[in-house]
Amino acid sequence: MDSLQFIGQVHSSLKNINDCPLQEFEGAPEASIHINKEYLSAISGLKTGSKIIILTWLHKGNRTTLTTKPRNNPNAKKTGVFATRSPDRPNPIGLHEAEITAITDDGRISVSNLEVLDGTPVIDIKIAL
Amino acid sequence: MDSLQFIGQVHSSLKNINDCPLQEFEGAPEASIHINKEYLSAISGLKTGSKIIILTWLHKGNRTTLTTKPRNNPNAKKTGVFATRSPDRPNPIGLHEAEITAITDDGRISVSNLEVLDGTPVIDIKIAL
Repeated sequence: MDSLQFIGQVHSSLKNINDCPLQEFEGAPEASIHINKEYLSAISGLKTGSKIIILTWLHKGNRTTLTTKPRNNPNAKKTGVFATRSPDRPNPIGLHEAEITAITDDGRISVSNLEVLDGTPVIDIKIAL
Repeated sequence: MDSLQFIGQVHSSLKNINDCPLQEFEGAPEASIHINKEYLSAISGLKTGSKIIILTWLHKGNRTTLTTKPRNNPNAKKTGVFATRSPDRPNPIGLHEAEITAITDDGRISVSNLEVLDGTPVIDIKIAL
């Protein structure tokens, strides 16, 4: 077992869980990531237009859930969470592909297509391959 | 801050770090994931041919590294780790797309294209979209 470092957090107009689309392609608001000061040097090289992968910590996820009905459909068969994209899972890590639409020197990164709640911790950013 | 649960581990012929290809497309051995017993129910619904995303915990990564020279090229410019795929980063999470080539009831999942060291902890599996 190991502990995570939160490298920043999401600022978004999505203030509660019922505002969230179920999948990214269903439309998400513009959102931004605010990088914590101590990690600022780790974003050098990112720029407007960069395609990135963002890993978030979906802190509202239920970590004891092992099976679920996909997309909350009561008629669906129970499925293991590892065969889904449910935020309820042992390690509730969100995976998001996005493009940087603006970035400032003090670590505010605006991105397209990030559909998580305001205040969600960010745990990693990687350049997309 | 929050702590991770290791849901399984990778078994691979890659026994030390010099065996590892720098990027997935450079060729990786067949490898398997052994799911820990307490998480077995979470893999129901996964089957041979399923395309999945595997998140690993790259336990040999240096968590204090914030800038790096991409691909260990001494002539490259120092770049923030969030603009790279380096395993050295505050949360050394590996991201891998793979296809299941075999799966057993006791949680052994053989996959194509997983280039991490033998013994690497697995922290999440998601179905690919």
